[in-house]
Amino acid sequence: MTKPNPNTTALNLPPLDPLPDATQKYFDICQDKLGMIPNVLAAYAFDEDKLNAFTGFYNDVMLAESGLSKLEREMIAVVVSAINHCFYCLTAHGAAVRALSGKPELGEALIMNYRVADLDPRQRAMLDFAVLMTEASYKIEEQDRQALRDVGFSDRDIWDIAATASFYSMSNRMASAIDMRPNADYHGQHR
Amino acid sequence: MTKPNPNTTALNLPPLDPLPDATQKYFDICQDKLGMIPNVLAAYAFDEDKLNAFTGFYNDVMLAESGLSKLEREMIAVVVSAINHCFYCLTAHGAAVRALSGKPELGEALIMNYRVADLDPRQRAMLDFAVLMTEASYKIEEQDRQALRDVGFSDRDIWDIAATASFYSMSNRMASAIDMRPNADYHGQHR
Amino acid sequence: MTKPNPNTTALNLPPLDPLPDATQKYFDICQDKLGMIPNVLAAYAFDEDKLNAFTGFYNDVMLAESGLSKLEREMIAVVVSAINHCFYCLTAHGAAVRALSGKPELGEALIMNYRVADLDPRQRAMLDFAVLMTEASYKIEEQDRQALRDVGFSDRDIWDIAATASFYSMSNRMASAIDMRPNADYHGQHR
Amino acid sequence: MTKPNPNTTALNLPPLDPLPDATQKYFDICQDKLGMIPNVLAAYAFDEDKLNAFTGFYNDVMLAESGLSKLEREMIAVVVSAINHCFYCLTAHGAAVRALSGKPELGEALIMNYRVADLDPRQRAMLDFAVLMTEASYKIEEQDRQALRDVGFSDRDIWDIAATASFYSMSNRMASAIDMRPNADYHGQHR
Amino acid sequence: MTKPNPNTTALNLPPLDPLPDATQKYFDICQDKLGMIPNVLAAYAFDEDKLNAFTGFYNDVMLAESGLSKLEREMIAVVVSAINHCFYCLTAHGAAVRALSGKPELGEALIMNYRVADLDPRQRAMLDFAVLMTEASYKIEEQDRQALRDVGFSDRDIWDIAATASFYSMSNRMASAIDMRPNADYHGQHR
Amino acid sequence: MTKPNPNTTALNLPPLDPLPDATQKYFDICQDKLGMIPNVLAAYAFDEDKLNAFTGFYNDVMLAESGLSKLEREMIAVVVSAINHCFYCLTAHGAAVRALSGKPELGEALIMNYRVADLDPRQRAMLDFAVLMTEASYKIEEQDRQALRDVGFSDRDIWDIAATASFYSMSNRMASAIDMRPNADYHGQHR
Repeated sequence: MTKPNPNTTALNLPPLDPLPDATQKYFDICQDKLGMIPNVLAAYAFDEDKLNAFTGFYNDVMLAESGLSKLEREMIAVVVSAINHCFYCLTAHGAAVRALSGKPELGEALIMNYRVADLDPRQRAMLDFAVLMTEASYKIEEQDRQALRDVGFSDRDIWDIAATASFYSMSNRMASAIDMRPNADYHGQHR
Repeated sequence: MTKPNPNTTALNLPPLDPLPDATQKYFDICQDKLGMIPNVLAAYAFDEDKLNAFTGFYNDVMLAESGLSKLEREMIAVVVSAINHCFYCLTAHGAAVRALSGKPELGEALIMNYRVADLDPRQRAMLDFAVLMTEASYKIEEQDRQALRDVGFSDRDIWDIAATASFYSMSNRMASAIDMRPNADYHGQHR
Repeated sequence: MTKPNPNTTALNLPPLDPLPDATQKYFDICQDKLGMIPNVLAAYAFDEDKLNAFTGFYNDVMLAESGLSKLEREMIAVVVSAINHCFYCLTAHGAAVRALSGKPELGEALIMNYRVADLDPRQRAMLDFAVLMTEASYKIEEQDRQALRDVGFSDRDIWDIAATASFYSMSNRMASAIDMRPNADYHGQHR
Repeated sequence: MTKPNPNTTALNLPPLDPLPDATQKYFDICQDKLGMIPNVLAAYAFDEDKLNAFTGFYNDVMLAESGLSKLEREMIAVVVSAINHCFYCLTAHGAAVRALSGKPELGEALIMNYRVADLDPRQRAMLDFAVLMTEASYKIEEQDRQALRDVGFSDRDIWDIAATASFYSMSNRMASAIDMRPNADYHGQHR
Repeated sequence: MTKPNPNTTALNLPPLDPLPDATQKYFDICQDKLGMIPNVLAAYAFDEDKLNAFTGFYNDVMLAESGLSKLEREMIAVVVSAINHCFYCLTAHGAAVRALSGKPELGEALIMNYRVADLDPRQRAMLDFAVLMTEASYKIEEQDRQALRDVGFSDRDIWDIAATASFYSMSNRMASAIDMRPNADYHGQHR
Repeated sequence: MTKPNPNTTALNLPPLDPLPDATQKYFDICQDKLGMIPNVLAAYAFDEDKLNAFTGFYNDVMLAESGLSKLEREMIAVVVSAINHCFYCLTAHGAAVRALSGKPELGEALIMNYRVADLDPRQRAMLDFAVLMTEASYKIEEQDRQALRDVGFSDRDIWDIAATASFYSMSNRMASAIDMRPNADYHGQHR
């Protein structure tokens, strides 16, 4: 029975103890499959409803059926997090890009400056839109959505790009606001 | 049986038709209580899972038990949305501030420049933190959280301030990315 | 005989008492026609020469013969004031846009994000130029003026766009510097 | 009888010809006293009312009785114009600072970076306030006005600082918007 | 005899071939000690004088006697390069921080957001000064230098902090301007 | 035998006394040819190696054979220094532009706003690239280098533009960090 790390943020909000059964089972699966309970889950574990609302929303954005691959959604996560300088998300999702792409250098480039990464025009357009959303969403107009359609994205794909990019504008700010710390294991993974 | 507006965004993603029963029931309640189906719900109604994940998360952030009143959460929503110049959220949550506070001028001031609003030190600190999160979350350090504790917020309250402010950094960007349009009724409410 | 509000700014500079005859007559006309003495006039009323110099200049910019309609000049006023987050000017000129256009939603949109407003290409070009002047006037080059000519503005019109936009870059800063407060009546007008 | 330069801006708006008598007399005095007709006056000379409204307002701001010396008002003009990179105003008012102070190096420093200029605390506070007004007027709060009172400025002086600083936020933008060019004579004056 | 990579930038400026004897010897030593010829040296190798001038200056800044350790100078390099999003310098100097500190996580944190790194007050002050130099050097005043003295830095140390931080404001821009690419080996080193 | 000014920066790092022979000879030549020892050299004269490394690098960038004229390199110096508001470099290199061009107005315009200067398309493109490097080097992509080739610059010229522009991003920051003051003589030269 795995215990979540009780000190993952700057707030004094320890996980429920004992955890509700369903949460304990979920965390055991995480431990089993990932070798860790991601600290973001430990952070939300002080309140079962908040944990469930968050994971429900997160799972839909990052794991549901989509015209975007899981790697592409992780690429958006990293590029948005780089603009927001979010240590937690860059560490966790940088590892995910390295894992899913098999290219450590890609993970690095997206953290440092996505403009130098070796991207096809479709992925570049996707990331350019994510960056525009992150830096100045109020400037987005029809031509920006059209640029996505022009490289082959459907309206349903545009929804998913927007949902993913906006999710990390939230997640980065939550993590920084409470000083959420990533699991140490991420740093060395898939190098 | 109320039908959601099929044209609330720039994307061609019409609501499911017919709506799943639970969704139809939810929308009927909205119509009954609010006199409208908020367009954000209509926008998500092309996919039941996405709608449920979103409303589950939204309801927890904005309506769950909290040391922050519903008005205070709406105030955060407006101040964050003002920085992001989000027409949808300013319209909808501006109306909510006017309704919950009974002070139209407060709603206006939070949209235009929250620094001129008549706020007590606790609410001012809350909004200052939300603004810092919105403009430069990566600069947040322990002293910024301590400033919230110094005016009486608990760590649990700080979580809720962070959760609310970060939610609108997401929601603003989603709305602008897909050009989500607010229900016309909001404009004249509670003036 | 109407008295101007002596507390319209953060500075201790009460209106002349009694007012000079011409000023008193002017204020009586304001009261009669607008139902109020606009607080900006009350603020300047500590010095007759300053009041006259300001109103002379203001009246020329906003009311003189021009290829721009009065509504168009008010639209520029609101869009510039939105960038400068000027509570006074957004309140007063937002009301003017609502009044002159008969469209409350237009007033709201110009305050929140003019890019979402329903504008014809001529008015959009006019406001884009006003925004460029407000955000980075030093970057203006001939092509920017030409873009105005291309949608039908004459050189005389360009002068008036420039004069109006620059006027509010002044007026917004004056109002914020001294914390000038708008008359409460504006908030509910023409909703 | 001196003729104003008909080509001082990028707009095709030549001076009235002949000039109205009062304007001609005013321009003759300029020529006599300054050795030139400042191009800003030539630019406005296409419309007598606009010229008179502008000069009336300008003269009140820069020349009327004030707790600020004429040099101090010119210092504000230069520091604001430096932020707005206004070639016309930096050239004309840079010359004025050199003339009134007798210190060419002061004029240069205010153009390049006022923080390196040799200023007493009163003048530094005055210029800091002008800079804050220019860069982010919406952030001004009571403590900023109090900082001026703390170094000896009266509320009447604060009005004049605000009026002067805001005037150049207008004037810089008008000059850049229409590409107003300074008289060549300014460059070499008082070096 | 090691050959430098002829394709390290976007410019068509291949290394001299054959290399001057002294340069060849220097590059052989690099190959021997570092296992590579750093691409920055290959980039300059089209002109012996430029290579020598650059390495002479670089070696003085980074390797000469100093109150700053080599690790501290590399920390400055990374933090400045993070602000400038320089892929080359973040890759090469990130590896150096990992190597010299023995803490991979420190290298990551300085790339992502130095504010979350575990730093003593002296190093934090050093990096804060480097950041201020990078973002807004013109705002530096005596109090900023005094803050360095207050944590124990001598005037000679301040020179070295300034020299190191300013060096990377140059080096980052040179690398980005010509699209200089780092040696692939850096990515996996010292993880 | 000329002595360098011992008080050219805010740091207590006086020149070596006596100076090494080679340095003294170099400074005597400066005095002879320029009528002064530039204060930047006096600032570095506390350490012979640093002085030599700096002058070696500086001389290569500014004086070596190049497709850019010496005036063009000085123009880049001024335009970069204007963005960084560096009093030292604007004073010294502004004088150099006046001297080499014979046009005082050009020196002024480059300090105030290079966009108003009378430049041919080649020089404008050169300065636009230098500005982009200074403000956001990480955004540079192949199209930006191509824009230089399109107006006739070779890859070797692009290197020199990049080297010159990046040099002043360093030099400006070094000067501001230590409050380096220019020789007073520059102010009046070549007016």
